[in-house]
Amino acid sequence: MTIRFALLGAGRIGQVHARAVTGNPQAQLVAVADVFPKTAKSLIATYGGEVRDIDAIAASDDVDGVLICTPTNTHADLIEKFARAGKAIFCEKPIDLDIGRVRDCLQVVRDCDAKLMVGFNRRFDPHFKALKDTIDAGRIGKVEMINIVSRDPGAPPAQYIKVSGGIFKDMTIHDFDMARFLLGEEVESVSAVASVLVDPKIGELGDYDSANVILTTASGKQCAISNSRRATYGYDQRIEVHGALGMVAAENQREVSIEVATADGYTKPPLFDFFMTRYIAAYAAEISTFISMLTDGTPATPDGQDGLRALAIAEAALMSVRQGRVVQVSEVLG
Amino acid sequence: MTIRFALLGAGRIGQVHARAVTGNPQAQLVAVADVFPKTAKSLIATYGGEVRDIDAIAASDDVDGVLICTPTNTHADLIEKFARAGKAIFCEKPIDLDIGRVRDCLQVVRDCDAKLMVGFNRRFDPHFKALKDTIDAGRIGKVEMINIVSRDPGAPPAQYIKVSGGIFKDMTIHDFDMARFLLGEEVESVSAVASVLVDPKIGELGDYDSANVILTTASGKQCAISNSRRATYGYDQRIEVHGALGMVAAENQREVSIEVATADGYTKPPLFDFFMTRYIAAYAAEISTFISMLTDGTPATPDGQDGLRALAIAEAALMSVRQGRVVQVSEVLG
Amino acid sequence: MTIRFALLGAGRIGQVHARAVTGNPQAQLVAVADVFPKTAKSLIATYGGEVRDIDAIAASDDVDGVLICTPTNTHADLIEKFARAGKAIFCEKPIDLDIGRVRDCLQVVRDCDAKLMVGFNRRFDPHFKALKDTIDAGRIGKVEMINIVSRDPGAPPAQYIKVSGGIFKDMTIHDFDMARFLLGEEVESVSAVASVLVDPKIGELGDYDSANVILTTASGKQCAISNSRRATYGYDQRIEVHGALGMVAAENQREVSIEVATADGYTKPPLFDFFMTRYIAAYAAEISTFISMLTDGTPATPDGQDGLRALAIAEAALMSVRQGRVVQVSEVLG
Amino acid sequence: MTIRFALLGAGRIGQVHARAVTGNPQAQLVAVADVFPKTAKSLIATYGGEVRDIDAIAASDDVDGVLICTPTNTHADLIEKFARAGKAIFCEKPIDLDIGRVRDCLQVVRDCDAKLMVGFNRRFDPHFKALKDTIDAGRIGKVEMINIVSRDPGAPPAQYIKVSGGIFKDMTIHDFDMARFLLGEEVESVSAVASVLVDPKIGELGDYDSANVILTTASGKQCAISNSRRATYGYDQRIEVHGALGMVAAENQREVSIEVATADGYTKPPLFDFFMTRYIAAYAAEISTFISMLTDGTPATPDGQDGLRALAIAEAALMSVRQGRVVQVSEVLG
Repeated sequence: MTIRFALLGAGRIGQVHARAVTGNPQAQLVAVADVFPKTAKSLIATYGGEVRDIDAIAASDDVDGVLICTPTNTHADLIEKFARAGKAIFCEKPIDLDIGRVRDCLQVVRDCDAKLMVGFNRRFDPHFKALKDTIDAGRIGKVEMINIVSRDPGAPPAQYIKVSGGIFKDMTIHDFDMARFLLGEEVESVSAVASVLVDPKIGELGDYDSANVILTTASGKQCAISNSRRATYGYDQRIEVHGALGMVAAENQREVSIEVATADGYTKPPLFDFFMTRYIAAYAAEISTFISMLTDGTPATPDGQDGLRALAIAEAALMSVRQGRVVQVSEVLG
Repeated sequence: MTIRFALLGAGRIGQVHARAVTGNPQAQLVAVADVFPKTAKSLIATYGGEVRDIDAIAASDDVDGVLICTPTNTHADLIEKFARAGKAIFCEKPIDLDIGRVRDCLQVVRDCDAKLMVGFNRRFDPHFKALKDTIDAGRIGKVEMINIVSRDPGAPPAQYIKVSGGIFKDMTIHDFDMARFLLGEEVESVSAVASVLVDPKIGELGDYDSANVILTTASGKQCAISNSRRATYGYDQRIEVHGALGMVAAENQREVSIEVATADGYTKPPLFDFFMTRYIAAYAAEISTFISMLTDGTPATPDGQDGLRALAIAEAALMSVRQGRVVQVSEVLG
Repeated sequence: MTIRFALLGAGRIGQVHARAVTGNPQAQLVAVADVFPKTAKSLIATYGGEVRDIDAIAASDDVDGVLICTPTNTHADLIEKFARAGKAIFCEKPIDLDIGRVRDCLQVVRDCDAKLMVGFNRRFDPHFKALKDTIDAGRIGKVEMINIVSRDPGAPPAQYIKVSGGIFKDMTIHDFDMARFLLGEEVESVSAVASVLVDPKIGELGDYDSANVILTTASGKQCAISNSRRATYGYDQRIEVHGALGMVAAENQREVSIEVATADGYTKPPLFDFFMTRYIAAYAAEISTFISMLTDGTPATPDGQDGLRALAIAEAALMSVRQGRVVQVSEVLG
Repeated sequence: MTIRFALLGAGRIGQVHARAVTGNPQAQLVAVADVFPKTAKSLIATYGGEVRDIDAIAASDDVDGVLICTPTNTHADLIEKFARAGKAIFCEKPIDLDIGRVRDCLQVVRDCDAKLMVGFNRRFDPHFKALKDTIDAGRIGKVEMINIVSRDPGAPPAQYIKVSGGIFKDMTIHDFDMARFLLGEEVESVSAVASVLVDPKIGELGDYDSANVILTTASGKQCAISNSRRATYGYDQRIEVHGALGMVAAENQREVSIEVATADGYTKPPLFDFFMTRYIAAYAAEISTFISMLTDGTPATPDGQDGLRALAIAEAALMSVRQGRVVQVSEVLG
């Protein structure tokens, strides 16, 4: 059985998913929509499919599912539209920057009995998935503490920062999802510290570029997250999970594993340059899982609730920074 | 431009190439031949194309190139047949176990002005290619010594050993090619030691399962190769190149890069289990290079001469073991 | 010039310093005092010197300096006594668990113009010192974020926990000192989270065994510290410093650097089992620095103020946990 | 019980042993002899003891053992002299460059029933010792192949090369001893290849600076050794042992374990600069073992026979290079 996809948004992340779809023997890229027709045309030149507008896709009989890769402020509307059109939906995170809007949107998804998967790609990274498998196999015992280091190679441009929702909703949200994925228990409270160390313009826009966050669960498990918008050495993505019987850690990844030794020392190349290269396998596995979910009827994971929870933690983190205190996630979620 | 391929031989290595071809946007798998029609049918079920016999493929207008993945003893005949049929040829190593037969075959290739690429896949591995790039960039200075460790996870079955041509022509031949690739100078003499440590049955068949070989060039550069037919920890594939200004080494590869720490220590998973998984990227790049060579008109590399040279070193290594002396490659090649 | 030492306290940490002193060609162990004469005798049997009581040591002409390795509640009294006796003083951390008592004590040190070095041994670890040197050499640019992971192999006995002052004053205090050492700027505010995950008895005593702390400086630099009282894999001591131009990290240490590869994977031995083995070189360098300071007249580092500052951060961390808010160090120090 | 030592030869290696002796609580450095009194005086200024001449030492009642650290051509005479004087003898390798002379010398040792330990320090390195322990514990099964990489940071001066006996007797001899130590079976045959790649002056003196050697035992076990007189990245000392059930490897050592990550990659410092720093712990353990052997009456290991065997392999390696054939050790030993 082949799943026929339409791609909404042919930008950077849209291309990542187009590659994942066309590389999957069970998937077909049927249609591509973008507000800039040139961008859509350029994408189909490489990956096939035809250019259609959003309404045409919603009305298409030859489309089983859509991949929403448009700007964040359009996500909720598109999810609702395609839920009503009876399509399976994969949506890039976040669903929306506003908790209330997310809730309304998820209500529509439920009402339409639509399938919605939210794009937390890191759960599908083979290395991070191996962390989860190791925990589930009991090798490190009961999870106690998680340490996540997540640093982007460089800060995004100001215009992106403006609409991003801030570092916690844009960047740390992935770490919040990984924390939930690995802790095996809901996050209850959040302590966050943030500052502007990389680029003063980010501060002028009311955002931060450097942050540390501590999450706590009801039983006292802790997860520490360290973020920076700059790492000269590449896309720094590490997770370690410490338990009663041991620890498991996922190392950073690089394109080639060579080491050059000279009088200056032993040098390995910098890390992957960003998520498009670092998470190729994760994006492929994500689409593959989405397809399985459609063909096998298994429930979507991560789903809309996962999107909502991660967003609520992000909201709580921002409150924590601003108010200088521990914030309960329940203060945000009600 | 799309290159249309026919695959000859749908066994293990045939499947590896079928995957590489179908994953390449510039290639198409048109036809598959195998002495067992069931095997061919099984392959097209996954990768597409249609089953044809060898003669039909030779006569097909819709086939630009063939991938010879049949048993070794058919390679030379098939190369000649398809050279005469005007097809581009990719042939798995070795061309033949007999130097004379290889020479005759290459003469036919030259007479027909055919394109022939020989399947030394490791040259295309991104990690080993990075070694070559590092050398060419001058970072380690003039190459002086190379150390190759190459160990299979387990010994092949007796029936394979019987027709394999022995460890040097079957297994070490890849290392000989890498040595030539990286030394930047022809190998002149060979000292080899071999014994049976893994499986006495291998010895009963007149072969060895454990070997060390030292290659030397005219200027005195040396390459040491260490082989075993068994490594409990996976497919052990390491190369380091030592030069006047430094060293560059390619590390072993594993599927996931996690480390589990317990009271027993810090443990990383075993290595990739064999060449089909370890060299996925290499096989993809190999086919991609073959396609470039066909579309751009660049000469094939590695070509028939590379196949001949590696085979001659293998022959010299066997003579060295049997006669307990350094053997010149010229004794074999004349 | 040889410095003649008296050792006060012949327990575990006293033995560590006895070894450092007797291994130093510029030092001599003259006298040892302990409330248990047997313990003192046992120590001199291995390291030399003679048993004397505290008063005799204070009155001894042949003692240049004392090493205070007695229980914490005696530190301040002994510092004052030996400051008045005109001896150079090396005191294990902390000076006292009470900030006011520390201040009074340091006033006596100043009044007597005594030399006082406080035992933050990690500053002298060659690996951590290399971090500092790398920062000072400008290789990673302006320091932005520090991540410290510091886990003990196992929790101390209940009777030790009772008098320890709690995890922040007993264990994290070393990390607080390293943060100050490496940040190059005073810590202003503290956010801490702590829980009891390892041993409920620790909780019954009002203490914690698992904690994460975020320190912030005036310019927004951040330091995240992760602590646990249990690590099955050994004494986990890692620091990484992230700056505008790069990062520098100090790896964990183990007794032997071997790796065993089997079908179960690649395994390195567990880490050093605790501070007595992990920090042998640090303790030797610490004593050597103390000696230099006495012979060259250089000021003591780390000194009493360093001890006071680290203690104040510990106090602030405890307040932060209890009050669920960011605490300014100035709230503690006034 | 304290063993009282006299040191013969106060040069570079003599200083290494002086440090090991004075750092050992069971040893005392009583006397030092050197043909240059200045050198001897300089050594005692740091390490204590008094300057005496060789004859005085032989006649001294307060000397239990001697450490022979003089030039190689004096070793055999000194061993005989002190064997007759009834002293325990530790002698740096090699005993002599001539097999016959070694044999005569060992006969004197036997006749005098003297204790003689030969300075193959690497057996005492904690990392290499851990290799041996791992093998003995059965963790890698029956040993099959050993790979030794041993590279000096730089070539010695011409005047040293002249009297060194050549690369095999001077440098590789350590690797031959390690091979014997770890193979658990005597080396039977030797295949060696050598060339001059580092410094033509070494070639003009009839020596080599780059070599690969393959050793074989009766049962077919193999050991491959790779040597170079130059490694820009430090003192490269690696051993890996491959067995039926797995592999164990000892990694290179460096002074500090830090890693700096920048846009240029991840860089660790170069290795230890040479044997004086790399093998500090080995030299200390070697002397400690020598002392145990004297106090406990355990037999010396490695002893004169070990010295003789390693020398014979070196001789066979040189024959192999010159004659271009496999050489049996029995051809040398008779």
